[in-house]
Amino acid sequence: MAQLNDNYLKLKAGYLFPEIGRRVNAFCTANPEAARRLIRCGIGDVTEPLPPAVVAALHRAVDDMAVRETFKGYGPEQGYDWLRAAIAQNDFRRRGVEVADDEVFVSDGSKCDCGSILDILGSKNKIAISDPVYPVYVDTNVMAGHTGPANASGAYGKLVYLSCRPSNGFIPEPPRKHVDVIYLCSPNNPTGAVASRDQLTAWVKYALANQAIILFDAAYEAYITDSAIPHSIFEIPGARECAIEFRSFSKNGGFTGVRCAFTVVPKTLLAQTSTGERKPLHPLWSRRMTTKFNGVSYLVQRAAEALYSPAGEEQVRALIEHYLGNAKILRQGARKAGLKVFGGVNAPYIWVRTPTGVTSWAAFDEILAQANVVITPGSGFGSKGEGYFRISAFNSRTNVEEVARRLQALKWPART
Amino acid sequence: MAQLNDNYLKLKAGYLFPEIGRRVNAFCTANPEAARRLIRCGIGDVTEPLPPAVVAALHRAVDDMAVRETFKGYGPEQGYDWLRAAIAQNDFRRRGVEVADDEVFVSDGSKCDCGSILDILGSKNKIAISDPVYPVYVDTNVMAGHTGPANASGAYGKLVYLSCRPSNGFIPEPPRKHVDVIYLCSPNNPTGAVASRDQLTAWVKYALANQAIILFDAAYEAYITDSAIPHSIFEIPGARECAIEFRSFSKNGGFTGVRCAFTVVPKTLLAQTSTGERKPLHPLWSRRMTTKFNGVSYLVQRAAEALYSPAGEEQVRALIEHYLGNAKILRQGARKAGLKVFGGVNAPYIWVRTPTGVTSWAAFDEILAQANVVITPGSGFGSKGEGYFRISAFNSRTNVEEVARRLQALKWPART
Repeated sequence: MAQLNDNYLKLKAGYLFPEIGRRVNAFCTANPEAARRLIRCGIGDVTEPLPPAVVAALHRAVDDMAVRETFKGYGPEQGYDWLRAAIAQNDFRRRGVEVADDEVFVSDGSKCDCGSILDILGSKNKIAISDPVYPVYVDTNVMAGHTGPANASGAYGKLVYLSCRPSNGFIPEPPRKHVDVIYLCSPNNPTGAVASRDQLTAWVKYALANQAIILFDAAYEAYITDSAIPHSIFEIPGARECAIEFRSFSKNGGFTGVRCAFTVVPKTLLAQTSTGERKPLHPLWSRRMTTKFNGVSYLVQRAAEALYSPAGEEQVRALIEHYLGNAKILRQGARKAGLKVFGGVNAPYIWVRTPTGVTSWAAFDEILAQANVVITPGSGFGSKGEGYFRISAFNSRTNVEEVARRLQALKWPART
Repeated sequence: MAQLNDNYLKLKAGYLFPEIGRRVNAFCTANPEAARRLIRCGIGDVTEPLPPAVVAALHRAVDDMAVRETFKGYGPEQGYDWLRAAIAQNDFRRRGVEVADDEVFVSDGSKCDCGSILDILGSKNKIAISDPVYPVYVDTNVMAGHTGPANASGAYGKLVYLSCRPSNGFIPEPPRKHVDVIYLCSPNNPTGAVASRDQLTAWVKYALANQAIILFDAAYEAYITDSAIPHSIFEIPGARECAIEFRSFSKNGGFTGVRCAFTVVPKTLLAQTSTGERKPLHPLWSRRMTTKFNGVSYLVQRAAEALYSPAGEEQVRALIEHYLGNAKILRQGARKAGLKVFGGVNAPYIWVRTPTGVTSWAAFDEILAQANVVITPGSGFGSKGEGYFRISAFNSRTNVEEVARRLQALKWPART
């Protein structure tokens, strides 16, 4: 009889965002008056319309598709040359970082790439992830059979969890033990932390010494305001021999509903075969994408290209400023409310310590009930997220100002 | 040290279409005069522009994204409800086939889904594929480690190859031995054959008796002209308990460059866990898509929806008639050239027997050199494709008429 992939059965049923949805729905049904005041700062989804340069490029691309002479069928699976070149030039070479056009693979989302990258890696790698962490890194490894079952606290066997806490600025240190694959995310989702050059240098050094691979998620790179913070892992010498980088147009161009991202796989990055040979991963990823993917929509690739035009770059800057302005207001609001606040300076997420004795979900319930605001409980991102919650800065200015006011009016229950 | 997925190293280097590209480039470089006359009937890519209903819907969708009030961020990973409903209603229920809206999963391509479906299946299934076959079914199983290495003729160990030949109408019979997963494609790529109701019924009976799963690829369903031929495997009683169906907008709406497809996973389809329990696959696919995918572009989903409008349906019919008209001309041309011809009636592909003693690649080279036409050698689709070649009907009418004329002028080398 046909067999299913048993590893899926190890996945915890109560995934974070469905559980949030359930609680919000129950609250709104019971409190229709409060429901009308509801403001969502939970999921990290953009709210502002597409930049005008993108809108214009999309209309032009649609017109291309309407006429036989300019119609586009299948494109190259790895992305059109003009988009790969625009990315490599503007995001990397212009900033002094060596990336060749054909090391850039255009895709329909970083989430997809973060999951799909496991296709080309072996099944016996020791995997390290941060705690708290973007759940997709964990779940895709569970699905691929790289973990044991989850324990009572939700941690999966075989994974190496790297603790993120105030004392390390929420960026984990390399572990003493050996691991083969490390997920790093900077600017970080959920904590809003950024990795310093020294921290990334320590990781590259560790990866080279251990012949490990760093999977570097830089989806929020555009939010970096501090000029000392690297935008790319490839700014660190040696990273081309040990890292893959994921980028996205979701949070800079506002493409969460448009769908475009890219992954950089340096040709100098090697991994080991089961017989101990070292071979480059670039041809494997190329084969993976040409065989299991058919390229991103021509329309969407033209939209992404427009982000690199002078007008597009200016409009992206304005979007980032808008969301970072929101983040500042939320930081100040939470601080005035007497809460301890992290992140939100080089990232669109604010990571807030709950008052002593209040769990993440208790904070979620209080903020929903009293302020009618949806946040994300930190414990949903891992056991080390307990005692924190995340506020997303993706919203209108009016809503964000209102959230800041409501946070200050919160009354926390007396400690029991 | 980080390990790579060794299974990728089993893949044959000389994939079909790159080899065709290499030979065409070499020929064009050596014969610039002939290169200007070149007509490509190789790869199955549409050539006609998008239907006007789609173009209009795309412009409207772009405008939605330009304004805060109608802007769309993340959509449901499985597709917007309105598109899932349009698909389930128009492609299935309107034709008397039971498919619920939430059994439809919208994706960015059938090629992606055909590969990704292996994510939710176990690693020990016995896999059956047709020979000749669409190479993606094979290669994705090689990558997933479901096969042994390839032998000298290119056949991979552990796969069960099902022979397609004139005597079975190029639709394989169920094997005597047990298999767990069967790939069927009707209308067929590359042979242009279609499975009759009796043939599909035999397969469903086999699958139910063996508790096997049929992966039914109906990407070319719109080309069925014979009213006796099923458009969906779900027209066959019992198929909801043993089949998954893949559909695409690539070849009906001309979406090869737009990227939209869907997969139907019935909630009544079960598979076995390693402990022998039977569980539904629908929640696994849903979990796979929500975790490893972020939905199809809002723009593209609006484009797909427009294909189901009255104007859209009319315009799709005109596109299909155009390509099927081409197929008829190519069939007649090849016949007049003294060749034995299959397919091209319910499919956009013509499957042509080479003259006695001429291999598929020899035919490719002769047709390129004499007629300056690119076809696809049948042996590239599997050992049973040797002695055939495929002509694609995706082209302009002028080009197709010219190809038909040139085929008739071909002089085949004397038998050695």
